[in-house]
Amino acid sequence: MASARHVTAPAGFLAAGVACRIKESGREDLAIIACKHDAAAAIVTTRNQVFGEPVRYCRSVLPKGYGRVRAVVINSGSSNVCTGAAGYRDAAAMAQQTARLLGTSARKVLVASTGIIGHRLPMAKVHAGITAAAGSLSRNNDDAALRAIMTTDTRPKYAVLRTVIGGKTATVAGMVKGSGMIAPSMATLIAVLTTDAAIAPRALHQALTAAMQDRFNAVTIDSDMSTSDMVFLLASGQAGRSPLAVGSGGYRKFCAALSEVCGRLARAVAADGEGATKLIEVTVAGARSAAEAEVAAKSVANSPLFKCAVHGGDPNWGRIAAALGKCRAKVDPNKLTLRIGATTVFRRGRPTSFRLAAVQRHLKGKTVTVACDLGLGKGRYTAITCDLSREYVTINAEYHT
Amino acid sequence: MASARHVTAPAGFLAAGVACRIKESGREDLAIIACKHDAAAAIVTTRNQVFGEPVRYCRSVLPKGYGRVRAVVINSGSSNVCTGAAGYRDAAAMAQQTARLLGTSARKVLVASTGIIGHRLPMAKVHAGITAAAGSLSRNNDDAALRAIMTTDTRPKYAVLRTVIGGKTATVAGMVKGSGMIAPSMATLIAVLTTDAAIAPRALHQALTAAMQDRFNAVTIDSDMSTSDMVFLLASGQAGRSPLAVGSGGYRKFCAALSEVCGRLARAVAADGEGATKLIEVTVAGARSAAEAEVAAKSVANSPLFKCAVHGGDPNWGRIAAALGKCRAKVDPNKLTLRIGATTVFRRGRPTSFRLAAVQRHLKGKTVTVACDLGLGKGRYTAITCDLSREYVTINAEYHT
Repeated sequence: MASARHVTAPAGFLAAGVACRIKESGREDLAIIACKHDAAAAIVTTRNQVFGEPVRYCRSVLPKGYGRVRAVVINSGSSNVCTGAAGYRDAAAMAQQTARLLGTSARKVLVASTGIIGHRLPMAKVHAGITAAAGSLSRNNDDAALRAIMTTDTRPKYAVLRTVIGGKTATVAGMVKGSGMIAPSMATLIAVLTTDAAIAPRALHQALTAAMQDRFNAVTIDSDMSTSDMVFLLASGQAGRSPLAVGSGGYRKFCAALSEVCGRLARAVAADGEGATKLIEVTVAGARSAAEAEVAAKSVANSPLFKCAVHGGDPNWGRIAAALGKCRAKVDPNKLTLRIGATTVFRRGRPTSFRLAAVQRHLKGKTVTVACDLGLGKGRYTAITCDLSREYVTINAEYHT
Repeated sequence: MASARHVTAPAGFLAAGVACRIKESGREDLAIIACKHDAAAAIVTTRNQVFGEPVRYCRSVLPKGYGRVRAVVINSGSSNVCTGAAGYRDAAAMAQQTARLLGTSARKVLVASTGIIGHRLPMAKVHAGITAAAGSLSRNNDDAALRAIMTTDTRPKYAVLRTVIGGKTATVAGMVKGSGMIAPSMATLIAVLTTDAAIAPRALHQALTAAMQDRFNAVTIDSDMSTSDMVFLLASGQAGRSPLAVGSGGYRKFCAALSEVCGRLARAVAADGEGATKLIEVTVAGARSAAEAEVAAKSVANSPLFKCAVHGGDPNWGRIAAALGKCRAKVDPNKLTLRIGATTVFRRGRPTSFRLAAVQRHLKGKTVTVACDLGLGKGRYTAITCDLSREYVTINAEYHT
């Protein structure tokens, strides 16, 4: 079938995705993404104070957020959160078994789980799944691996980018799951990013952290921060000779490619937000600082009233003004200018006599852009979200415990 | 019809509510609540940085939040927000006309408006409405006044309480509108509270501020803070001889009655939240401070995922844990205990083997209670909200601009 469409596109990576009946649906629910040798690795994990045992395990393996690992094993269907010491042993057992089958040590395997909170993993099924997955690792199975990490996602989300660094073509690729419980403030998602660029662990972590702030962290579906979110970045080094030095031209090219891949994945997550019919980009400019711009942009992006108005195609810009006004960032209505699509609807304290039809047409599209100029400074941030639909409620009222 | 059911129940008050076609529906949309003589008055206004011109007007009349006034004039259908200097003149004109008809000065009349943001008031209609309302002031018209301040409310919300202070029966009453854009952090609603207790303006303001924090501010429907929210409290003094001194037994009885009335109104607002099918009370105890308890309780009460789960009757307590973990208040899963109704579902870091049927039965009721003990201190707060339904989306996707 599909061959090396995303995470196995960079040289050196293999993947597998199998169904081991953690999910009642019988769909794929266990994935391994492995490197043929030890890869440089960096992770970013959720800032939720209630976090999963796999998160705890990964932090113990990579206390600084970077190091060298061989593989990542991920299950969906159950998140192994609020499961205590027994849950931690389950996460460690997943790493141990994967490591044994790959001929490495448990400290070289990272673990993630996603799904319902508060249930022990069905370890007999998980062990069978790991055995099957380790036996089917291939460059051709990245699509199966992606299906195996999905929960309420309605479509696979991935990105690949090639860039020339030091005369050699390097590939940066990623796959992501996530469509609900996607939140602001350093929440992330489960994403696996791979590259064949040569880059040392610490430099890799620095690149990942930077890409997070502007990309994944800009996405907010519902303001609910997951307990399980993790982003993994593995670098095989096969497309480079010596590791890229931080600050070098090659490093900057790598960072740009990584940021672009993360940006595409972030937009894909927002567009596939639970029940979403539209992608919404909220840009706040003219804030007193970048931090205030982020607070203000997310206040709009998380406003249920604003998101419902966009869903209904209603140019109710008053809800944008109200959402800005309620946040901790400084806002002065008399300096505020609001644009929906290309139309200025409010300029420095006064509604404009805008053409309603033009705004309504923009709101009917698949991507809605809102630009808020606070007129107070140079701070700028773009938050990404989706509209709020009845379908969001249906999905989340019926997600089974 | 109905006679003195709420705001005219205390001695000395009159009310009127008329339809003057600000609302396209033709329903009542202009109300006056008046005292027969100058009343002690206290107000609390929205903390939204984008606030309505009526809010600006009231703040100019009562810069300290208290004073003496004769009446409050309120319209629904249009909120007079983001309307600039012209909007301010409209608000002032409403006060001037009302004052002239009541034989007092414009500085003795307060103004509020609720409805769509960003449109000038149709002042010809408003003036006709004020004339009609001033001509129909009566003890019997408080229900019409209440209907005239409603927007997406599905039912009238009011409360009356009698208490004996200094050997005389005093009455505390209130009516409130609000079912969407109801938010945390000192946001309020439009409420008119009346009493015939004798109490000086400053003491009245102190009592109102205290009642706000634990009552109206505990309500959050959708985390969206309105630009127009105001609470008015008028005291005619007719049921008392000399003003109650702050700290006296009589003052404490008055404060308790006021708090009870505000609490009933707050619960009524939550139960009538847009699309609500259930009232939800989220109590956080054991926080490091009362402020952290409030942050944590509101984090749960504002979680769309939690509210959808309650709507679907799903005992998905993991979403409660996740919502606690994401907030700024300190949370340690190993000290955390969660109860839904009377059932403990999670105790100090471990899921209990609770009876699913008991929790499901509780979730099917009209009032759902969630108790979170953080196990870290003595801070305690109860937030009040409602479930999140498809109907909320329908209402807010179709509210006309």
